[in-house]
Amino acid sequence: MSRTSAHYNFLVFCTDTFYWFLLWSLNRTHCKCQRFLAVLFYLYSYIHMNLLPAKNGEEPTMQFLLEVVEILTSYIRKTFDRSTKVLDFHHPHQLLEGIEGFNLELSDQPESLEQILVDCRDTLKYGVRTGHPRFFNQLSTGLDIVGLAGEWLTSTANTNMFTYEIAPVFVLMEQLTLKKMREIVGWPDGEGDGIFSPGGAISNMYSVMIARYKFFPEVKTKGMAAAPRLVLFTSEHSHYSIKKASAALGFGTENLILLNTDERGRVIPADLEAKVIEAKRKGYVPLFVTATAGTTVYGAFDPINEIADICEKYNMWLHVDGAWGGGLLMSRKHRHKLNGVERANSVTWNPHKMMGVPLQCSAILVRERGLLQGCNSMCAGYLFQPDKQYDVTYDTGDKAIQCGRHVDIFKFWLMWKAKGTVGFEQHIDKCLDLSAYLYNKIKNREGFEMVFNGEPQHTNVCFWYIPPSLRSLPDGEERRQRLHKVAPKIKAMMMESGTTMVGYQPQGDKVNFFRMVISNPAATRSDIDFLVEEIERLGHDL
Amino acid sequence: MSRTSAHYNFLVFCTDTFYWFLLWSLNRTHCKCQRFLAVLFYLYSYIHMNLLPAKNGEEPTMQFLLEVVEILTSYIRKTFDRSTKVLDFHHPHQLLEGIEGFNLELSDQPESLEQILVDCRDTLKYGVRTGHPRFFNQLSTGLDIVGLAGEWLTSTANTNMFTYEIAPVFVLMEQLTLKKMREIVGWPDGEGDGIFSPGGAISNMYSVMIARYKFFPEVKTKGMAAAPRLVLFTSEHSHYSIKKASAALGFGTENLILLNTDERGRVIPADLEAKVIEAKRKGYVPLFVTATAGTTVYGAFDPINEIADICEKYNMWLHVDGAWGGGLLMSRKHRHKLNGVERANSVTWNPHKMMGVPLQCSAILVRERGLLQGCNSMCAGYLFQPDKQYDVTYDTGDKAIQCGRHVDIFKFWLMWKAKGTVGFEQHIDKCLDLSAYLYNKIKNREGFEMVFNGEPQHTNVCFWYIPPSLRSLPDGEERRQRLHKVAPKIKAMMMESGTTMVGYQPQGDKVNFFRMVISNPAATRSDIDFLVEEIERLGHDL
Repeated sequence: MSRTSAHYNFLVFCTDTFYWFLLWSLNRTHCKCQRFLAVLFYLYSYIHMNLLPAKNGEEPTMQFLLEVVEILTSYIRKTFDRSTKVLDFHHPHQLLEGIEGFNLELSDQPESLEQILVDCRDTLKYGVRTGHPRFFNQLSTGLDIVGLAGEWLTSTANTNMFTYEIAPVFVLMEQLTLKKMREIVGWPDGEGDGIFSPGGAISNMYSVMIARYKFFPEVKTKGMAAAPRLVLFTSEHSHYSIKKASAALGFGTENLILLNTDERGRVIPADLEAKVIEAKRKGYVPLFVTATAGTTVYGAFDPINEIADICEKYNMWLHVDGAWGGGLLMSRKHRHKLNGVERANSVTWNPHKMMGVPLQCSAILVRERGLLQGCNSMCAGYLFQPDKQYDVTYDTGDKAIQCGRHVDIFKFWLMWKAKGTVGFEQHIDKCLDLSAYLYNKIKNREGFEMVFNGEPQHTNVCFWYIPPSLRSLPDGEERRQRLHKVAPKIKAMMMESGTTMVGYQPQGDKVNFFRMVISNPAATRSDIDFLVEEIERLGHDL
Repeated sequence: MSRTSAHYNFLVFCTDTFYWFLLWSLNRTHCKCQRFLAVLFYLYSYIHMNLLPAKNGEEPTMQFLLEVVEILTSYIRKTFDRSTKVLDFHHPHQLLEGIEGFNLELSDQPESLEQILVDCRDTLKYGVRTGHPRFFNQLSTGLDIVGLAGEWLTSTANTNMFTYEIAPVFVLMEQLTLKKMREIVGWPDGEGDGIFSPGGAISNMYSVMIARYKFFPEVKTKGMAAAPRLVLFTSEHSHYSIKKASAALGFGTENLILLNTDERGRVIPADLEAKVIEAKRKGYVPLFVTATAGTTVYGAFDPINEIADICEKYNMWLHVDGAWGGGLLMSRKHRHKLNGVERANSVTWNPHKMMGVPLQCSAILVRERGLLQGCNSMCAGYLFQPDKQYDVTYDTGDKAIQCGRHVDIFKFWLMWKAKGTVGFEQHIDKCLDLSAYLYNKIKNREGFEMVFNGEPQHTNVCFWYIPPSLRSLPDGEERRQRLHKVAPKIKAMMMESGTTMVGYQPQGDKVNFFRMVISNPAATRSDIDFLVEEIERLGHDL
């Protein structure tokens, strides 16, 4: 049937009119015929409103997608509007019971497209606005519009990173971007290797695998039995993914040795050397050291150069976990905090954290070429045929522990195009300025106590709020126990009122404290002021 | 500056008028001043057209996003249009050199938003249309419109699966959907556990980790040294991710024992039992068996019940890798091919393959509750605070080997709502009907030879095309060598002409053959006819 024929257009007009009449009736009628109308409506929807690839599906598809976009743009508008709440909190059982008809259960029969749109609206309504200028809860915050457009395009292209054959443009973008990142790390001519992985934890896991392959390649075929007892070292403040990797990869968490830190959460190099010597004395083989560039809680930067000296001395792999702090490499003002990173054998760097790229976007960079391939390749004939017409060195999928791999590069590449390197630098400098503003605002403010002294190295500002009722209590167990409950209570009230969100946790012997982090480009000084006042308002009477 | 002030509104009016005047002039003028106007325009864009969160960024943001959507919907229209090519092939060096101004290099300075839109168009132009009705190259094909809308929403929500706190709706959706999948697998009341992971390879890796934890929990803390020599079993036709997992997790690929298959690619249970006995005789401990439900190349279903008998007899973990074939569980007509799946200890099932969900969407299902948590949890205080105001058993992030975890559930949940269980069933039945159609069309067709006899179990149809020049050659090395080159040559021509795409590979001692797979709901019999004729057209003179 030709789309342009008058006959067809008339048919479309009639069915569309009937559709809207049905929808209108359904909303207005409150009598017995409602059920009948509903049946007719669903039947109609099912038969006539089919999306592509259905015959004549183009019109309904475009209409449907535009309605979805309308919902999304309205959400985006509100996300940046400070008069909107960050979240509309409900307990799990409330959402499961189905608030205002929002039914999470799946059923055998299809729902109408109208209902699908309602489901989309409800999903956003009961979610959390991670792009809101007052959402400070996570290391990944914000909603970059160009990055978002990149994600929309990525899902529309819906392809897979394993071969050049089916992702030619994305594979090249990944390669160029990784090279650029390696140049910024400081490896000569950006030489080396790397891959985008589904998050920092997997990137860190890659680093341990590659280190093992470098020193004990036979583990790949013979297993851990082929190696002596290997030990790994990381800061007591480091991310738990290093521990997860040591469990998963067969090292065992007991063979991950935690390093002491100074008051600011930075590894003490002498402690590393002492523990390396101790391990060797026991006959173990020190294999791998993580230096964290930006710890999760304190935002501390381990002294990479001093750690690198020890790694060289004892022939150990040096991995820099810059999942959180790697972004600072983009800033001429702050990159000195990662001095020595160019001496690392591998680096984790998550653009989805400090650089505001939508989730997920994490890179593992490796200084020595070929290791990633050697460690992971299995040469599956059904995926990586050597007899293709193009240069198959671009089929990089066999480097990965994944087979299918989501396209994480495009949004990042597009943001880089739109902001330029200077744009990322401005963003990072601004976030660090904001955290300095917060630090200066509260360091001597009544009722606030800093968890560690001195200006934070990253945007992490860690502090206790002391309600008036606790201020006169002497230091001791009672004060500790009561203070431990303050942050959770304030956080709960914050979530119930939906005004802002910030994280808290204990650390070592320190009771629950707030950890403020700033990575959202939408945040301003007024939002910092708001947070401080909100904590005071909610916590005053505790 | 107050947005509502008359002064401000007047300014906006003036600058907007100037903007549109510039844009209009740029499109109309074909004289020397065009360059000047363009410079003015980009300067203007750069200064004034800042996106949110910039002040007054709402208007430019909405305009920009709508232009992106215009590009995407135009791409979608063409994707379903058979007169459009599947791809516009270029070699890596051509794309790297920058075709028609498409510059992949990143720079320090920002590009204008106009240029960003051009970059988006170019990215799609030089990519591959995986949703095209004639793209048969991969197990994941097609472009489901509701799934796509789900992905757009997911990226707009831009959150993370680790806690209920920041992803309340998505966490519950994941829980309900996993339960539903477990019910369909056949576990009583859908009991058990599971998680969505970044692809089938990682899901399979989870299964090996959990099996090891179940039988040798001390490996988590003490490493592989705490276990005896463990061996794993999988089909010689199984996916290479099992091999990758055995290397990564410290078992070693030599401790992965490959099982012989019958002519159709199905594991021979007696071979499993013989190899288990042999391993035990050597003092090794048989730990884990994968039964593949839908192998990558042949689409074979291993006999799960017979394998389960052996697993029970020798106390081994049974994992069913249904990454590709799991979807058949949705079909009353075809689910018998997975008979016995309810006896598995774990199941991988990728909705992003046979069920047409956009990439990535893969589930690992586990029959015994608590193992996933026990195996992977590290109880990081900064992420999983026990003293929250809601039921923290919904904070499921510590089950994962990841920390940040992309929201893969929403698109799947939304598609299930829109299609109903019956919709997935229809999709699967239709794809299998189409592959039967292809099989019947070519099994006795001149110039075609099947790789194995009988109707395929899945949508995989494996065949050689024999060009006329080879038809009279006697079976032997010369014929084999020449035949080996036929599929790559046809594939190369196919890609150069961009008309269709289908995969090829060798398998064991079989030379390169085509592997046709159908998972795209847009494909019809006419597309199958087209493929067959295209292969004949391109291969006739080889």
